[in-house]
Amino acid sequence: MKQIFEQKNLFCLPWTQTILGTHLNGKVNFMALDWITRVNFKPAMIGICVNKNNASHDAIIDTGEYSINLPSVNIVELTDYTGLVSGNRVDKSDLFEVFYGELKAAPMISDCPLSIECKLSQTVDLPTNSFFIADIVNIHIEEQFLTDGTPDMKKIKPFLLTMPDNNFWAIGENVGKAWNDGKDLRKKQ
Amino acid sequence: MKQIFEQKNLFCLPWTQTILGTHLNGKVNFMALDWITRVNFKPAMIGICVNKNNASHDAIIDTGEYSINLPSVNIVELTDYTGLVSGNRVDKSDLFEVFYGELKAAPMISDCPLSIECKLSQTVDLPTNSFFIADIVNIHIEEQFLTDGTPDMKKIKPFLLTMPDNNFWAIGENVGKAWNDGKDLRKKQ
Repeated sequence: MKQIFEQKNLFCLPWTQTILGTHLNGKVNFMALDWITRVNFKPAMIGICVNKNNASHDAIIDTGEYSINLPSVNIVELTDYTGLVSGNRVDKSDLFEVFYGELKAAPMISDCPLSIECKLSQTVDLPTNSFFIADIVNIHIEEQFLTDGTPDMKKIKPFLLTMPDNNFWAIGENVGKAWNDGKDLRKKQ
Repeated sequence: MKQIFEQKNLFCLPWTQTILGTHLNGKVNFMALDWITRVNFKPAMIGICVNKNNASHDAIIDTGEYSINLPSVNIVELTDYTGLVSGNRVDKSDLFEVFYGELKAAPMISDCPLSIECKLSQTVDLPTNSFFIADIVNIHIEEQFLTDGTPDMKKIKPFLLTMPDNNFWAIGENVGKAWNDGKDLRKKQ
């Protein structure tokens, strides 16, 4: 028999940990970001949820551009730090070496295996947060993190966040193949 | 030097695998769902992205209610099966034992450690998909998957999807503590 878990505001499924890159008043800024999903198949669009109190929120409204960077487990501390201090009080512009793609205000982190360049397309206003929907302009990845031309999670070594226990988790063993493992059941129907 | 990854439609970060539960023309239906995120802190709101061609898409529009269920690695095959066949062609209502909370059209899966009961609040129309924003009505969890009153991922054993390699991954080792591991760096600034 299931019981009701009361901390529904705090709870989250395991989310992939990313770092949001913006330009805040003309300076590079970073923020730990967990609430993120693809939202449209074609064209490729991605959505992120940012609290209205965060400096990055206003930076996105201001420039309409940002990056989503996928850190490896070797920079857990730096990633966590970006979520502990506000860009309104602390200059985080020197934390990482950055590079740019097509967009002028989407600083991408060289130390992250994979970075997504995003152009804001639509903002959904919600009570405490904004949900920003963006076109994926480009996905940038280091060749060393590809296997047969595809991003390889065993090489990238991303990590996940769960709340309210606030744990970071590595990716574990391969447990199956999507659009494949259910085929035997389909035959039986 | 990073290169551009061309398959941006297909790519996704590691997403937690869930199963969407709906009522399709009055019958229970399920669909594998990966594009999902929290979208508002308070009140607790969650967003999911569903392709307009999926039967579940119309079911959500019709009833305004659904469930999000978090499966364990022991039901990878069943989970994958729900994403291989359409509810418009195959009756999936007997796949799982279900239970209900407050909502009449949000069938929750007894075999999943954790289920989220959702009431649709807003629909964002995008080119190939709809992004459904819902209030989290309740989170239901079996007591055996809690530790000190909190969902314990080592007990729940969720799994993740990556694309375009289409792999399922278990959660791995604990690699840190959020809002904590960056504190030493904060002191140094």
